[in-house]
Amino acid sequence: MSAETETTSSSDIDSVGLVETQFAELFAPPNPLTLREGTTLGPITVAYQTYGELSPEKDNAIYICHALTGDMHAAGRMEKRRKSGWWDGCIGPGKTLDTNRYFVICANVLGGCQGTTGPASINPDTGTPYGIEFPFVTVEDIVNVHSELVRHLGIERLLGVVGGSLGGMQVLQWAAKHPDQLSAAIVLASAARLSAQGIAFNAVGRRAIYADPNFKEGQFYDEGEGPRFGLALARMVAHITYLSEDSIELKFGRRLQDNDSLSHELHAETEFQIESYLHYQGKRFVERFDANSYLYLTKAMDYFELAPNPGDLSAALSKTDARFLIVSYDTDWLFTTTQSKEIVSALLSQQKHVTFSELSSPYGHDSFLIELDKLGALVEPFLQQTLATSRR
Amino acid sequence: MSAETETTSSSDIDSVGLVETQFAELFAPPNPLTLREGTTLGPITVAYQTYGELSPEKDNAIYICHALTGDMHAAGRMEKRRKSGWWDGCIGPGKTLDTNRYFVICANVLGGCQGTTGPASINPDTGTPYGIEFPFVTVEDIVNVHSELVRHLGIERLLGVVGGSLGGMQVLQWAAKHPDQLSAAIVLASAARLSAQGIAFNAVGRRAIYADPNFKEGQFYDEGEGPRFGLALARMVAHITYLSEDSIELKFGRRLQDNDSLSHELHAETEFQIESYLHYQGKRFVERFDANSYLYLTKAMDYFELAPNPGDLSAALSKTDARFLIVSYDTDWLFTTTQSKEIVSALLSQQKHVTFSELSSPYGHDSFLIELDKLGALVEPFLQQTLATSRR
Repeated sequence: MSAETETTSSSDIDSVGLVETQFAELFAPPNPLTLREGTTLGPITVAYQTYGELSPEKDNAIYICHALTGDMHAAGRMEKRRKSGWWDGCIGPGKTLDTNRYFVICANVLGGCQGTTGPASINPDTGTPYGIEFPFVTVEDIVNVHSELVRHLGIERLLGVVGGSLGGMQVLQWAAKHPDQLSAAIVLASAARLSAQGIAFNAVGRRAIYADPNFKEGQFYDEGEGPRFGLALARMVAHITYLSEDSIELKFGRRLQDNDSLSHELHAETEFQIESYLHYQGKRFVERFDANSYLYLTKAMDYFELAPNPGDLSAALSKTDARFLIVSYDTDWLFTTTQSKEIVSALLSQQKHVTFSELSSPYGHDSFLIELDKLGALVEPFLQQTLATSRR
Repeated sequence: MSAETETTSSSDIDSVGLVETQFAELFAPPNPLTLREGTTLGPITVAYQTYGELSPEKDNAIYICHALTGDMHAAGRMEKRRKSGWWDGCIGPGKTLDTNRYFVICANVLGGCQGTTGPASINPDTGTPYGIEFPFVTVEDIVNVHSELVRHLGIERLLGVVGGSLGGMQVLQWAAKHPDQLSAAIVLASAARLSAQGIAFNAVGRRAIYADPNFKEGQFYDEGEGPRFGLALARMVAHITYLSEDSIELKFGRRLQDNDSLSHELHAETEFQIESYLHYQGKRFVERFDANSYLYLTKAMDYFELAPNPGDLSAALSKTDARFLIVSYDTDWLFTTTQSKEIVSALLSQQKHVTFSELSSPYGHDSFLIELDKLGALVEPFLQQTLATSRR
């Protein structure tokens, strides 16, 4: 373990959880991070987890880029968390990202709220949380931090970088700006730029947070509960966009939550199951997520644009010799197949190696978190082929 | 003009506007309105407008049911309003609903906020606005009031009832519960029940209003600005659902509102044109709409269900001999073609006269307010045929 690396305290772990419980490792880059136009941020901390063992040749590392509200806890158990990691079905011994074979890395993104420096972190200049004094963060900044972490781990070239949604944007960014650092890029349910509709929904979410009187210009950390209502509302509206119309109809329809018949009460906010579900999702979310991080990361998502014009996308992706796997889902209306195909076309015009599949799934945008068997059937051979090619 | 009818004051109308300016007529039903389970509401007032002349045979009347946030001002100019009515392109001399030929009626719905009794009206028992003490309102109640207005106007049978979205729900309800009162039913961009996704978006809008500290349990009328932020937010999210993904992309894309380049300012809430547009829509909406009405009418929309099961829809529509015209739009994802086809199937199984068309339009759910030529090409001959049949 280098001087810049330390583990979180394990003092309060019970003996039962110990065996299978991981901690977040912490990496502190030695130099401040340079953001756009010469702004610097630092010192920063990066919270990450790894699964499996790095091969002696250091050629089996796969980096996972998490989506908007994910974090470094991608698999297995983690201290103080009841649930397994967000992609646990995909990462582990014998799974798609087989930890008997691959060394898997996942870090909380810059601007996040699960251990990596973000707006809730203490600003060393003031001794108080940054709040909205935190510098503006882009997908490029996020990926630059990931890239430095990979070098810190002694890995010159990743076997692959994988991510869905905002994670997929990071993969594309990585291939464009650090083209020699990866042999494979796997982009799931993502796009080279967010659609106007996507920006619209994010704008609504941010408005909900700003309009919450407990937002207090982002300095709510010592002020009781913070903008809980606003953040929950942002999550509710976003959550609708993650589901397909069919899946929401099938799962909830017009079924009622508690009663046999409609109450005819105006105030009944959770009468239909779908209402109850959304309210629950909103409430749960505020327990684990920082409202300022939500503002920063949705802005990063809105701003992401690998190339301003579709025609320039080819040039942006021209430098890498990574093999690409692009996957979309037929019921995903937030990141559509059309958007994935735009990436595919750009890659083909540069004569890159690219595999594309539109998977059929009822689960909309969330499919990349749910339909793991279908995804594994594509990803497993793709990675094995990449590994075989790189070892040839 | 009967004892129950009076016009609003015209004292402050300038002479220029006078010629083409209409007032809302007011109708006060003589008896209290009976709501579900014996609850009564009254006295109530109904604000309505008419266009054209009722024929001596009283057989040329067409009733327009407005959508969620519309009102009786469907066409022409109205006192104190800068804009023409919401369906002005459709109603007037020589237009689809030709006022040289037809007598067109439109009333603000029960629970609304433009002259018909609603939560902002004074509760005679307390002398203060009802607020959320206003009784729960259903589409059935709304249509019962319309039905009584039609009788009050001396019309035994309407040539047609027309409406889009929530207005289309009213048309279906009318055909089901007052089957002898109409010769034609024209249902645009609507459904026999709201989808789970539709309920979800409405729930988010209501949450925004409830969470606004200025909501004050619905008694905000004397309290300054009321839940402006919440209502504006509700409108923003709803507005996204009225547009198609393609139209929003085409109209706004990722274009910026004021600057040539991205500001990298977290607080820039109206940087993209789509953001600016949505914020503007939200702000404009709160100037003309009551937050309590929004709660009541979205609830009425959620509750509407002509029949609990698709199989029962045929029975619900069995009693009328009206001719049906059902229109959906291919890019409408809030009220889909599938939902329209469900109505068509139910009608066909009852051997009703039904014409169905899915119109192609880029404008999503809003198409019925925009694509008036395409609509006219269907509606005009349909109504002429109905009139010819009824006069035969």
